[in-house]
Amino acid sequence: MNAVIELLKQHRSIRKFRPDAIEQETLNTLIEAGQCAATSSFIQACTVIQVDNPTLRTELAECAGNQAYVASAPRFLVFCADMRRHQLACEMHGAEMQSGYTEQFLTASLDCALFAQNVAVAAESMGLGLVYIGGLRNQIERVSDLLQLPELVYPVFGLCLGFPDQDPETKPRLPLNVVLKQDRYDDTQDHDAIKAYDEQVLEYYRTRTGGTKEMTWSGQISEMLVKEARPHMLPYLQSRGFLKQ
Amino acid sequence: MNAVIELLKQHRSIRKFRPDAIEQETLNTLIEAGQCAATSSFIQACTVIQVDNPTLRTELAECAGNQAYVASAPRFLVFCADMRRHQLACEMHGAEMQSGYTEQFLTASLDCALFAQNVAVAAESMGLGLVYIGGLRNQIERVSDLLQLPELVYPVFGLCLGFPDQDPETKPRLPLNVVLKQDRYDDTQDHDAIKAYDEQVLEYYRTRTGGTKEMTWSGQISEMLVKEARPHMLPYLQSRGFLKQ
Repeated sequence: MNAVIELLKQHRSIRKFRPDAIEQETLNTLIEAGQCAATSSFIQACTVIQVDNPTLRTELAECAGNQAYVASAPRFLVFCADMRRHQLACEMHGAEMQSGYTEQFLTASLDCALFAQNVAVAAESMGLGLVYIGGLRNQIERVSDLLQLPELVYPVFGLCLGFPDQDPETKPRLPLNVVLKQDRYDDTQDHDAIKAYDEQVLEYYRTRTGGTKEMTWSGQISEMLVKEARPHMLPYLQSRGFLKQ
Repeated sequence: MNAVIELLKQHRSIRKFRPDAIEQETLNTLIEAGQCAATSSFIQACTVIQVDNPTLRTELAECAGNQAYVASAPRFLVFCADMRRHQLACEMHGAEMQSGYTEQFLTASLDCALFAQNVAVAAESMGLGLVYIGGLRNQIERVSDLLQLPELVYPVFGLCLGFPDQDPETKPRLPLNVVLKQDRYDDTQDHDAIKAYDEQVLEYYRTRTGGTKEMTWSGQISEMLVKEARPHMLPYLQSRGFLKQ
């Protein structure tokens, strides 16, 4: 296993940061590394808002369900799926843009994830730690207003960055034979494999919480999925010009 | 700039591969590196179908608009957003899963992209080259049938992998001030910055094609966006249990 793969395998979310600053030049390097990720049909649909303003940071932390590190992390980035730029390109050529397709929503969102994961890997290669903040979508309309996002731009997730002030264990992942299948989708072994994995996750939480958290993977997932999942997302996205067809 | 960031910055799509095999053990290492990426609320929604069967590969190449390297690349992977596994977890706990939310479609799709980008970075760190295959979505229903995907699983994109037998230049990206914004979305400089970038892209294609391809970024985007974008995606996804609300 080479050093890059070692690095990838050491990933865990960091939510506690040392106060040490991340220079703007360093941040620019991370963003440039993000831009080098593959982009669907060269659309380059990811725009990053770097949020430095402390008032904004406090409000975004609230939006994300009071995750204090959104306000306190040395850096906080919001990754936005951006088709406003495509509209501009169309205007430059007097072309009438066809928008609102599900496919476009998908490619723009995927572009953000590919971009962000490159930023994450680059950051970790410098010794930085990070946590993705999907919680911004709790109050996505308020986030959009705070960042003055125009139509055809939506915030996919945030990213806290800083030098780690904690050293949590990596979290065990599903067995390889559950996530990697040969030639076709065959899930006959999944039930038993997930049962075994559940034990591993139970042990992970036990060790990590000194026995106060008893949770399996399937238990956690099933508890989450009996509830509705951010039902405001579809009307919000449609109001911003996405997912209309 | 450290070696990891150098690696990320050297990315370009590879579509021509040496015949050298990629061992299964190596492939497993790549998938394990993929699994280590962040996952939204620990959903681990990415399943990879490794396609070795030559007949299947030929059919998938057709689905992707006759991209021959889908059939001929030493390895071909299909990344699927998978909520079937979550359904199984719910069944294991007698829980009634709430599905069809846009938010769930988004998080499952993003999980695949984060996972795949880790696979891509790990692969490139071993000297492998790759190209993402979004074209599978041209005939997404046929792809789903070929891979026997059940409800709540859909193919997000493919990935060709192999040792490069070509050495194309990296493609210039949008200027940093277009993709990185401070505290709010301000696009007042974008028009001029894109104009300047267009010249750079024009030059890139001129050099690369010996003058036969004359194309700017905004020109390319505007040509693409006057057309409809895979309008079958929404009905397809809904028929598979996604994007119903």
